[in-house]
Amino acid sequence: MGDVKLFRTWSSPYALRVVWALKLKGIEYETIYEDLANKSSLLLEYNPVHKKVPVLLHNGMPICESLVILEYIDETWNTTTRFLPEDSLARATARFWSKFNDEQLVTSVFKAYASQGVEQEEAKSPALKNLDTVEKQLIGKKFFSGETIGFLDLVFGWIANYLEIFEETSGIKLLDEDRFPLIMTWKDNFSNIPMIKESWPDREKLVIKFRVMREHFLSVAAAK
Amino acid sequence: MGDVKLFRTWSSPYALRVVWALKLKGIEYETIYEDLANKSSLLLEYNPVHKKVPVLLHNGMPICESLVILEYIDETWNTTTRFLPEDSLARATARFWSKFNDEQLVTSVFKAYASQGVEQEEAKSPALKNLDTVEKQLIGKKFFSGETIGFLDLVFGWIANYLEIFEETSGIKLLDEDRFPLIMTWKDNFSNIPMIKESWPDREKLVIKFRVMREHFLSVAAAK
Repeated sequence: MGDVKLFRTWSSPYALRVVWALKLKGIEYETIYEDLANKSSLLLEYNPVHKKVPVLLHNGMPICESLVILEYIDETWNTTTRFLPEDSLARATARFWSKFNDEQLVTSVFKAYASQGVEQEEAKSPALKNLDTVEKQLIGKKFFSGETIGFLDLVFGWIANYLEIFEETSGIKLLDEDRFPLIMTWKDNFSNIPMIKESWPDREKLVIKFRVMREHFLSVAAAK
Repeated sequence: MGDVKLFRTWSSPYALRVVWALKLKGIEYETIYEDLANKSSLLLEYNPVHKKVPVLLHNGMPICESLVILEYIDETWNTTTRFLPEDSLARATARFWSKFNDEQLVTSVFKAYASQGVEQEEAKSPALKNLDTVEKQLIGKKFFSGETIGFLDLVFGWIANYLEIFEETSGIKLLDEDRFPLIMTWKDNFSNIPMIKESWPDREKLVIKFRVMREHFLSVAAAK
């Protein structure tokens, strides 16, 4: 297996994907917690382009960007637990939706979280429409990847916990049971997997962090 | 090989990646030219989320997003011409830089192209820094992927032709020989590959198109 180290913060949802992936594959690893207000020289050395977590260090070689790391883990530790499907078309579909999550869904939800008043009201509709699109991906399935969790469940996993933190700290309501029954059921299925459950960051700490972060974004926007 | 169709426009650099990939693999395909001002019902059906080109249709199944399509082509037509390397770490590196291109480099260059005056001057520096980062990837190599062209050459391929169109139509100078000698040499190596050379869109038509597009962006920005 070699020497595996993960640079993360306690709160990053992108790093959490990698934590889940490593745990689900049964890979032993060492965790290095970063403080992004005071980044370690190692983090800057290993991820000089983005200077962000997560960074996976495998036998001294750094791999950056969470989606890239997930594919690396899946290819390198080719165990019975596979994240991406074998079929090329199904793999393409998984990659398509992972891009949709990172480039479109997250952005739209973040906009609704980091705004207020009329601007927040306007940001709500695209976020809800993107969630409608996600809801449709669960028709007839227990997990995004089928009967067991896979790549897309790790990618969409933030919806199961961070989304309600965004809601609570910004006063918007996005996930209601009438509009998103499949996401709500998936959320329970996903969250209750022991390895997922034990890995969630402390809820109260997250609420405090995202409340402070929102105040920061609002004051930056107001200063413009 | 099955039935392969490509939905593209004559000018899209993202669609051009797929054209190159199909030609380099020797895959026969039918081209469907889209007019984005008047999208076909087939395009809307095959790419309902983004409503964009390129879309690859393989035996009736649509694959969207150019990077996803490149990986699909590489996995499906597993010929002697491979785009991604075999080694997991090298694959992760290729995927990392492809994200860097699409999410960071293109955005920064586009900002410099679609702005003017002080704003354009400010946009120039991040674009140049991103190009510095690209320049470093070519140290000791003929192509981004090594001795022969591969995944990253298809991804960075727009630099070999579209970048000078951005420069000419917006009056900025980014690629100079003193600062980017390796990119300039790569540009020649890449452009002179017959299959690449024959596929470039008409230069004069591109200049007209990107000039009009820039006027549009500037007027939208001015109206804000």
